[in-house]
Amino acid sequence: MLFLTRAEHFNAAHKLFHPGWSQEKNEQVFGPCANENWHGHNYDLFVTVKGQADPETGMLIDAKKLSGIIRERVIEGLDHKNLNLDVPYLKDKLCSAENLTVAIWQQLEPHLPAGVQLHCIKLNETPRIHVEYFGS
Amino acid sequence: MLFLTRAEHFNAAHKLFHPGWSQEKNEQVFGPCANENWHGHNYDLFVTVKGQADPETGMLIDAKKLSGIIRERVIEGLDHKNLNLDVPYLKDKLCSAENLTVAIWQQLEPHLPAGVQLHCIKLNETPRIHVEYFGS
Amino acid sequence: MLFLTRAEHFNAAHKLFHPGWSQEKNEQVFGPCANENWHGHNYDLFVTVKGQADPETGMLIDAKKLSGIIRERVIEGLDHKNLNLDVPYLKDKLCSAENLTVAIWQQLEPHLPAGVQLHCIKLNETPRIHVEYFGS
Amino acid sequence: MLFLTRAEHFNAAHKLFHPGWSQEKNEQVFGPCANENWHGHNYDLFVTVKGQADPETGMLIDAKKLSGIIRERVIEGLDHKNLNLDVPYLKDKLCSAENLTVAIWQQLEPHLPAGVQLHCIKLNETPRIHVEYFGS
Amino acid sequence: MLFLTRAEHFNAAHKLFHPGWSQEKNEQVFGPCANENWHGHNYDLFVTVKGQADPETGMLIDAKKLSGIIRERVIEGLDHKNLNLDVPYLKDKLCSAENLTVAIWQQLEPHLPAGVQLHCIKLNETPRIHVEYFGS
Amino acid sequence: MLFLTRAEHFNAAHKLFHPGWSQEKNEQVFGPCANENWHGHNYDLFVTVKGQADPETGMLIDAKKLSGIIRERVIEGLDHKNLNLDVPYLKDKLCSAENLTVAIWQQLEPHLPAGVQLHCIKLNETPRIHVEYFGS
Repeated sequence: MLFLTRAEHFNAAHKLFHPGWSQEKNEQVFGPCANENWHGHNYDLFVTVKGQADPETGMLIDAKKLSGIIRERVIEGLDHKNLNLDVPYLKDKLCSAENLTVAIWQQLEPHLPAGVQLHCIKLNETPRIHVEYFGS
Repeated sequence: MLFLTRAEHFNAAHKLFHPGWSQEKNEQVFGPCANENWHGHNYDLFVTVKGQADPETGMLIDAKKLSGIIRERVIEGLDHKNLNLDVPYLKDKLCSAENLTVAIWQQLEPHLPAGVQLHCIKLNETPRIHVEYFGS
Repeated sequence: MLFLTRAEHFNAAHKLFHPGWSQEKNEQVFGPCANENWHGHNYDLFVTVKGQADPETGMLIDAKKLSGIIRERVIEGLDHKNLNLDVPYLKDKLCSAENLTVAIWQQLEPHLPAGVQLHCIKLNETPRIHVEYFGS
Repeated sequence: MLFLTRAEHFNAAHKLFHPGWSQEKNEQVFGPCANENWHGHNYDLFVTVKGQADPETGMLIDAKKLSGIIRERVIEGLDHKNLNLDVPYLKDKLCSAENLTVAIWQQLEPHLPAGVQLHCIKLNETPRIHVEYFGS
Repeated sequence: MLFLTRAEHFNAAHKLFHPGWSQEKNEQVFGPCANENWHGHNYDLFVTVKGQADPETGMLIDAKKLSGIIRERVIEGLDHKNLNLDVPYLKDKLCSAENLTVAIWQQLEPHLPAGVQLHCIKLNETPRIHVEYFGS
Repeated sequence: MLFLTRAEHFNAAHKLFHPGWSQEKNEQVFGPCANENWHGHNYDLFVTVKGQADPETGMLIDAKKLSGIIRERVIEGLDHKNLNLDVPYLKDKLCSAENLTVAIWQQLEPHLPAGVQLHCIKLNETPRIHVEYFGS
């Protein structure tokens, strides 16, 4: 069993905001992340897949092909976007790094080729905050 | 002459947008950076000052003190903010990395202690886009 | 199950030194790390916790709150300190990266809030030497 | 159980090339990696071992000693080399990052001292492509 | 005057080799870099341009446009190539980092738009070897 | 004119301490850096030299040779040392990053080969504090 990780990145705006709460309560719970006017991040995304190397090509999956799938299914919908406003699959969710990580798994998992299993989505919101999800 | 650089960072939302242009023209000129709903970045800021080391302390300036000045005069006003909406001194400016770099110089320069000259503001908007300004 | 990692850092002096051995034997076993006069490092600390995201906040734990706990329970006692002389819980231990990693686990683990489990302490003593401990 | 990782690096040339295929088919499958005239990389290698810390030394293994074993058994044979032409144990293999990672495991694993188990070989071919192998 | 840097990268094979010297003399002068069978690197390229920000756009030059020029004029001809064999403008030159840096300046400088001056080409051959050229 | 930078690193202990002052005054001026029992850092050192590339070798100076000079003249005397106690040329100086940077220049400058001029010593005491000295 081999594990291959492809790193990608995207830039986006968001805020942490619970629509059922007052602005005061949102600020109390989320601090400056609740700024009504948004803030943003350069997100680093690490997608790890696992499986066997193909005996003929020596590759688990062509890293360029994996990059293409990630860009089509994930990056295009998130890069230079407002996570709360522009992303249909995040519409009714709190745009925390945790929820975003799980949502990226769900977007990507159905589109990997046969023989390649999604193992981990790792998302670095800042150089000091990293979230990982392994699918369950 | 010695040069001391202090690295700080902040997260913010912005868009590139000329108010005198249509949304189409803004998108044509600025591409995805013109997204009406904003996007954002983790900005890395490098402030370089120059001068002589104090013979008694061996220091040009205490790096913690320099950090405190940068945080008070620059970071507090930018971190977790919307650059276009929340920052008085950027109100009528295009929030490009270039204009932001010059504006940070102007905010910081008057507040450095005697004997310490501001030499360079370097701002990394992403790991691949860096702007430097030396004051003129 | 989600995993959230918070990165922190501290600077400290130490030496590798077995009090029951001669200085020669210490130098033979530990090499330049046994220098009687100490040496030091910028330590990078990565604390990983695991659990469920809170349905209301979308967060496993507020990263700022986690950072506060780590700083109070770990960083304040280690930063700008001599690990061999200044840290009560390392007093009779060899201050290797391995022992320090386990000791950080023990300091931090009792202070995490309900619903958040400590998963891993990772300590980078240098960019080329990393130690991980998972609690057993 | 503790895990210790040592980072090393080497520079090498290679190409992805199946000898039973035409140059056209190789280029179709491997893209620019099939360039007949070779290309190359700065490889970052992370070797993780696991075991107990020695009660007397506080160390799982002296990181300098581990580095010495990795350099003798792996780096010397790969650094400033052509992976396809100069490395006996890669002679009949496709020099993919996946196959290279497994081959490094096989070179290193028999030479670790008693009490120290090889846990993971991680190889970064570029900053955006990482392969991990855990031995089976 | 503002300075904008765009980071790009490419992977390539090369060797250091003087055609008028014996293989022995080449190995004596260039060490393992003279390996007849080539070795290679992940090169990090930093292109710095200077000029005034356009008052309407706030930009010195659109970083995406600058990236496009660098890719067309420099990266496409070097990425996944053998510097000694595949690059017409390096044909009769020693493919040292120094000569490559100057050659990249010469390739790029004529193609920058009016109002934008090339200031510096910085090339990192490895994380520990960096070359800079300012045009004279 | 070409500029070549070689990166090296060393680990050391130090404290900021003025012998003519009380411990209270030292702590008031230098804060936690005045801890009597020392603290320490992983220092990153960047040595930049300038000159012409040799027409025969294409190199300003062999980076391995430059590394050897830096290690012999600077690193060996500082690595795994106490800067205040173990380094003769720092004996009566405050071991600030500023003074250390100037002292490294003085140690290294006389030992560079003909045709190679020292241009800059850059010392990163932490990832957020960098000092540069250009020789005057």
